[in-house]
Amino acid sequence: MENNLPHLQVLSQHKLFKNHSDSWRVVAPHVRVRIRQKDDVVLHHGDLANSLWLVLNGWVKLTRQTPDGKETIIGLCTAGDVFGEAALFPHANYPYHAEVIVADTEIATIPADIIREVIGKDAKISASIMSLLNERVAQTQLKLEHMNTMSTAQRLGCFLLRLCNQNDINKQSLQIPVEKHLLAAYLGMKAETLSRSQQQLKTVGVSVQGTQVDVSSVANLREFVCNSCSEAGNCEVEDIG
Amino acid sequence: MENNLPHLQVLSQHKLFKNHSDSWRVVAPHVRVRIRQKDDVVLHHGDLANSLWLVLNGWVKLTRQTPDGKETIIGLCTAGDVFGEAALFPHANYPYHAEVIVADTEIATIPADIIREVIGKDAKISASIMSLLNERVAQTQLKLEHMNTMSTAQRLGCFLLRLCNQNDINKQSLQIPVEKHLLAAYLGMKAETLSRSQQQLKTVGVSVQGTQVDVSSVANLREFVCNSCSEAGNCEVEDIG
Repeated sequence: MENNLPHLQVLSQHKLFKNHSDSWRVVAPHVRVRIRQKDDVVLHHGDLANSLWLVLNGWVKLTRQTPDGKETIIGLCTAGDVFGEAALFPHANYPYHAEVIVADTEIATIPADIIREVIGKDAKISASIMSLLNERVAQTQLKLEHMNTMSTAQRLGCFLLRLCNQNDINKQSLQIPVEKHLLAAYLGMKAETLSRSQQQLKTVGVSVQGTQVDVSSVANLREFVCNSCSEAGNCEVEDIG
Repeated sequence: MENNLPHLQVLSQHKLFKNHSDSWRVVAPHVRVRIRQKDDVVLHHGDLANSLWLVLNGWVKLTRQTPDGKETIIGLCTAGDVFGEAALFPHANYPYHAEVIVADTEIATIPADIIREVIGKDAKISASIMSLLNERVAQTQLKLEHMNTMSTAQRLGCFLLRLCNQNDINKQSLQIPVEKHLLAAYLGMKAETLSRSQQQLKTVGVSVQGTQVDVSSVANLREFVCNSCSEAGNCEVEDIG
């Protein structure tokens, strides 16, 4: 039998629930947590949206495919991220395909009927969910902006910045958490453009060796990237998602 | 004194209110309608969000500017479109600049405190607003997808398709409602790329002369465009906004 208790503790502090203990008490008994492996399909584009999903650990990619066979990665979700918001609405379908991209990814689900029940009863949790949706709009609009205003090196730099601890603006080391071809696709560039962008980041003190990244000055990288972003200096909205 | 009555009639049927007559009765006395002229600034990026805005007629562009001076058009709003959703949240700021781009644009405003009051009291209108926000997420994700999957000619074709009456799949004539340089910026391309894209659309029977567009077969244009879109055949989500 799986022990859900530590997960429930984490989820009760998620921004969706932490100020809504009444709603959380209704939701908690219905939460299910599963550990999934790389390449596991979590949900299919077009399936009836019967659950809301929350990533506890690991990474999930959200993709869409066109009739002529092109795939776009519209989101990379990690700890704390929510996906499948279509479940908030009756008769809605998931607007993307979701697939696990790293081993031992832990994902919690909340059944759609339970989440809709608490929304119907508790105006305060509705406000939290609206805020979550509004954040998603802001993130997506910002990503769209970056496609227009940033160079590919800046877009890669922006992704790396979001992996940095923002409290330490000096030297940092980090790991790129997903495969390079996925990262390139997510950033809307070809694999060879990603390599070129890595080279260009050397000039601002960022060295990439395989998945290992050394940032000699977060402040310098931030200056290089954020000068081409309208949210410069205020990017809490810019979650990876 | 301005006569708001015809506008109120239209607004009462807006998807936000049409099934929520109790909420509409609270909101209606507070709605203000103004006719604005080209280049009028409606709101500034960063202003405290004190109203929700609904376009009744005309066009409004939503833009953001980066510190290094690049501007992105993140939305073009026309009749039926809502902007300024930041007003749903206390202490939020508008995340863009809004400016009128055609003469005699009519815009209604609802004060933020009134809209938040009805949300707090009526779970059903919350559901409509969540659905509005979710639609906005879907539109923005689709636009992002199109930047990756579509040629510039397809992106222009997609914009024109959305101006067509979808009930008539044969020949149609229409007007491009906004200036060409704005359209190019909105579609994420340079002015010369827009001209080239217009030329390319001739091969699928679309002729553009100034702002006049003749589409010889909506069905053909749809085939050319939608084959590179994951929403092919189901693009109610793809409002211009």
